[in-house]
Amino acid sequence: MTYQKYAECIDACNRCADACDNCSTACLAEENIAQMAQCIKRDIDCAAICRLAAGAMARNSEYAGSICSLCAQICEMCAEECRKHEADHCQTCAAVCAECAKACRAMAA
Amino acid sequence: MTYQKYAECIDACNRCADACDNCSTACLAEENIAQMAQCIKRDIDCAAICRLAAGAMARNSEYAGSICSLCAQICEMCAEECRKHEADHCQTCAAVCAECAKACRAMAA
Amino acid sequence: MTYQKYAECIDACNRCADACDNCSTACLAEENIAQMAQCIKRDIDCAAICRLAAGAMARNSEYAGSICSLCAQICEMCAEECRKHEADHCQTCAAVCAECAKACRAMAA
Amino acid sequence: MTYQKYAECIDACNRCADACDNCSTACLAEENIAQMAQCIKRDIDCAAICRLAAGAMARNSEYAGSICSLCAQICEMCAEECRKHEADHCQTCAAVCAECAKACRAMAA
Repeated sequence: MTYQKYAECIDACNRCADACDNCSTACLAEENIAQMAQCIKRDIDCAAICRLAAGAMARNSEYAGSICSLCAQICEMCAEECRKHEADHCQTCAAVCAECAKACRAMAA
Repeated sequence: MTYQKYAECIDACNRCADACDNCSTACLAEENIAQMAQCIKRDIDCAAICRLAAGAMARNSEYAGSICSLCAQICEMCAEECRKHEADHCQTCAAVCAECAKACRAMAA
Repeated sequence: MTYQKYAECIDACNRCADACDNCSTACLAEENIAQMAQCIKRDIDCAAICRLAAGAMARNSEYAGSICSLCAQICEMCAEECRKHEADHCQTCAAVCAECAKACRAMAA
Repeated sequence: MTYQKYAECIDACNRCADACDNCSTACLAEENIAQMAQCIKRDIDCAAICRLAAGAMARNSEYAGSICSLCAQICEMCAEECRKHEADHCQTCAAVCAECAKACRAMAA
C-alpha cells in the first residue's frame, strides 16, 4: 500500500497520540494536579498533531513532510515537559514522544 | 497505563484509520474513479470515527463504549463497500475494517 | 452548497467545540483545579465529537444523523457538568453545549 | 473568554473546514471526477488542518501561531486548485480558503 513507505513514522505517531491521550487523563487524576497543567496542555496539543500527521502520511499527502516537521517540534516540547514528572504515565509518554519526534524529523528530512 | 485495557481495540482503530486514509487516496488514482466515489466517502467517514475512537479509549473516556459502538457500524459499512472492489487497497481495507468492527463490537459489549 | 441544509447545526457544533476547547484551557488555570477534572474531561470529549459532527454534516455524510445523535448526548453531559461551576467560561460553555445538543437532536430526528 | 482574541481567525478556520468538506463531497458527484482528484485531496488536507487550527486557537495553545502559519500555506494551495474549477462549490471554496489563509497569516504574524 501507498502508505507503507511511511509505515514506521505512522506507527510512531499513533503510539504517541495514544500515550499523550492516556497521559492527559492520568494527569487529571494526580494529587498535585496544579503542577500537571502544562503537561496536560502539551499532551492535548501533541495528540492532536500526531493524529493529523498519521492521517496525512496514510493519505500520502503532499503536506506530510511539513506536518511531520511541525509534529516533531510539538513532540519534543511534550517530551521535555513529561520528563519532569515522576509518574509512570509521564515517563512513558516522554519516551514515546521522543521516539516520535525522531521519526518525524527523519521523515521530514 | 490506563489505556492498556483497550490496547487491542485502539490498535485496530489506528490500523483501520490508516488503511481507510490510504484507500481513499489510492481510489482517487484509479481509472474507474467514478465507481469509487462511495468507497472514498466511506473511507473518509471511517478514518475519522476510528481516530476519534482511538483517542477516546486512550483517554479512558466515559463515552468510549458508545463511540466504539457507532464506530463498529461505520467500519462494517466501509468493509462492505471496499469488498466490492478488486483493487488491493480496497481488499486490504475491507479486511482491516472488518477486524476493527469486530474489536469495537467486543469493546462496546 | 450541499451542506447548507445543515448550516445551523454545523454552526452550533463549531461554536460548541470552540467553547469546550476554551473551557478546558481555562479550567486548567483555575485555583480549584482538582474540582474541574470532570469538566476538563467532558470538554475534551465534547470538542472532539462536535468537530467530527460538523465535518460529517459538511460532507453530507450518510452517518451525519447517527453522529449528531451521539453528539447530542455528549453535549448534554458536558452542559450538565459545566453548569455546576461558577466560572464564566463554564457557564458560557454550558449554554453553548445545551444549544448544540438541541440542534443535534433536531437534526438527528 | 480566552479565545476571543482569536475569534475572527477561528471563525475563518471553521468556515474553511466546512467549505472544504462540502467541496470534497460535491467533487465526488461531478461528471468529470477524474479532473477533480487533486481538488478532493487538497480539500481533505485543508479541512483537517483548519479544524486543528480552530481547536488550537480556542485552547489558546502555545502552538497556535505555528499551526496557523502552516494552515495558511495549505489554504492557499487549496484556493489555488479550487479556483481552476467552474463548479460553484469550488469557486466558493476558493474564496473561503483565500480568506482563511489571510486570517491565518495575520494571526501567525
